[in-house]
Amino acid sequence: MVKVVIIGAGLMGTATSYPLSDNGHSVHLVGTHLDGEIIKSCKEKQFHPRLKRNLPVGVRPYYIEEIGDAIEGADVILSGVNSLGVHWIGRTIKPYVRPGQMIIAITKGLETDAEGNWRILPDVLAGELDEAIRPQLKFAAVGGPCIAGELAGRRHSCVVFGSRDFSAVEQLASIFSTPYYHIWKTSDLVGLEFGAAFKNAYTLAIGIAYGMLEKAGGVDEAGANFHNLAAGVFAQSCVEMSRLLQIAGSDQSFAYKLPGAGDLYVTAVGGRTVRLGKLLGAGKTFKEARQIMAGETLESAEIISMMGTALPRLEREGLVQPNELPILRTLVDVIVYNKPAQFPIDQFFGGKAVL
Amino acid sequence: MVKVVIIGAGLMGTATSYPLSDNGHSVHLVGTHLDGEIIKSCKEKQFHPRLKRNLPVGVRPYYIEEIGDAIEGADVILSGVNSLGVHWIGRTIKPYVRPGQMIIAITKGLETDAEGNWRILPDVLAGELDEAIRPQLKFAAVGGPCIAGELAGRRHSCVVFGSRDFSAVEQLASIFSTPYYHIWKTSDLVGLEFGAAFKNAYTLAIGIAYGMLEKAGGVDEAGANFHNLAAGVFAQSCVEMSRLLQIAGSDQSFAYKLPGAGDLYVTAVGGRTVRLGKLLGAGKTFKEARQIMAGETLESAEIISMMGTALPRLEREGLVQPNELPILRTLVDVIVYNKPAQFPIDQFFGGKAVL
Repeated sequence: MVKVVIIGAGLMGTATSYPLSDNGHSVHLVGTHLDGEIIKSCKEKQFHPRLKRNLPVGVRPYYIEEIGDAIEGADVILSGVNSLGVHWIGRTIKPYVRPGQMIIAITKGLETDAEGNWRILPDVLAGELDEAIRPQLKFAAVGGPCIAGELAGRRHSCVVFGSRDFSAVEQLASIFSTPYYHIWKTSDLVGLEFGAAFKNAYTLAIGIAYGMLEKAGGVDEAGANFHNLAAGVFAQSCVEMSRLLQIAGSDQSFAYKLPGAGDLYVTAVGGRTVRLGKLLGAGKTFKEARQIMAGETLESAEIISMMGTALPRLEREGLVQPNELPILRTLVDVIVYNKPAQFPIDQFFGGKAVL
Repeated sequence: MVKVVIIGAGLMGTATSYPLSDNGHSVHLVGTHLDGEIIKSCKEKQFHPRLKRNLPVGVRPYYIEEIGDAIEGADVILSGVNSLGVHWIGRTIKPYVRPGQMIIAITKGLETDAEGNWRILPDVLAGELDEAIRPQLKFAAVGGPCIAGELAGRRHSCVVFGSRDFSAVEQLASIFSTPYYHIWKTSDLVGLEFGAAFKNAYTLAIGIAYGMLEKAGGVDEAGANFHNLAAGVFAQSCVEMSRLLQIAGSDQSFAYKLPGAGDLYVTAVGGRTVRLGKLLGAGKTFKEARQIMAGETLESAEIISMMGTALPRLEREGLVQPNELPILRTLVDVIVYNKPAQFPIDQFFGGKAVL
């Protein structure tokens, strides 16, 4: 039995407490300053209002102001915030981290500096901690297709744990694995994290395809949807993820395994990212769509914006040719330059019409 | 303008007449002996009752008894029958084929002989024709994600045309291409055909995952579906398709392009194959499910049965290890040996839990 502190009481952070509780670990769930209502409900009724479930046995909820008590003696710190909270969580746990602890992040995203260099989020988080302690901590991350509500419902879920330190992955996998939470392991942390981030971006493209259906008048009198277009976008997205993983020096096969195709599938059929895509595909500009969705975290847009900053650098370094990545370019045009969504379909798959 | 004869007036055969008509070609649509009612409606009202659409301008419907008139002077013969009709169509067109004609098939399937050797369907069809004329014909096939009703609705569709003779692919692509029917080309006919067949088999696995949801009591009180399991099955299916394409000496990347992941996606979200899978996943044996679906063509089951015959040969030849292809083995157990459906999830992705 180990002690795990989850910081961030949103859907996915909280969902990870179910396998942990089932394995008999001690779990402290700390809400961020945005999770006050959630923690209140958890404290009063052991009920999570967004997951719509009771907290599992033995999980103790804490307000952010109580983090000092909550984090005391933790073996594992799980970062359950979204990509906008990564710097915050690093600064927040900074006073409390101790040598030997493992820090595992479920956040999907990436960050780009002014020169267009990409950083994975575990490195961003680590960057907020004291330099002296960093080598004494083990950083890891979770990727792969996992809808939080299903994990919390103890549905079979296949995920990937990654760390540059493979022994940390092995330890963490043995802590989290249950008969329904199936964990594969990798030391290609960069590939895992980029795969997860890219997937979020490309899911928006699938949403855009279905938004275009609406623009075309919806399902027609004979029932025709836009699944064919979505499938073409899906396949080209896998190709682009594979190419981007190659550029990052990572395992290209992730593009059609859990972090790529698997996660793209689950987010397309069961995720929330498609909603923004549908608005864009239906003809709204990103500015308009953002107003409609005010208050919601648009992680895919954040990621696309970061990738848009990286693209000129990749071209400058000769890593990407101008005819490559047509879907990514469409996404950048839509999100960064506020252009209407339009896919250059005939540029998919190399653009020369030879598959 | 060329003359194209489509044989088989089902959904997909008829759907291909829309781009052909839009390109100004002369199209004769010949129903099989099972399509009598369809052709009657087409002749009387130019309306296709299953597609629920009017035939496009200039498409002339024919009963199978009129095939002699219909096929006279054809430049292209399109085989629009399902996999069970491939021998039949070969024998049917045998008296009429002429040197220089192109024969293109939309059928998805494969055939295995008693020794477990696989043959692609264009070769099965060719085998029914006189040996002397075969070298004077050009055989091709269509793969990739394409729901017929969407193609007939002139929705964007991304497909792949393949032939061992690349010049035939180029000719055919120029005949069929429209601004909505996007065609990529390959000379890897075997990879294209196997990809399409495998995809049909693996779609059944996705259906099974959703059937297991029903067995588990359906969506739970907090809304949890089985998308996570389906996504794991999706990703492992891509891995197995890639492996099988490698064994066939074909382009493995098809597994995450249009013939693999793209087609798997579209069949999972918009196709009809999942219905059988849902029955199996919910606990019916194949025998029971077949009775429930009496009268429907169960192409995926046919393909799995063929693959089941090939599997011992592949193992004997050392091409497949016993721990490989866990989903295919599950499918063979269910379809050939009538066993209950159960996924050995922890054997996915190499089974060693290292992705």
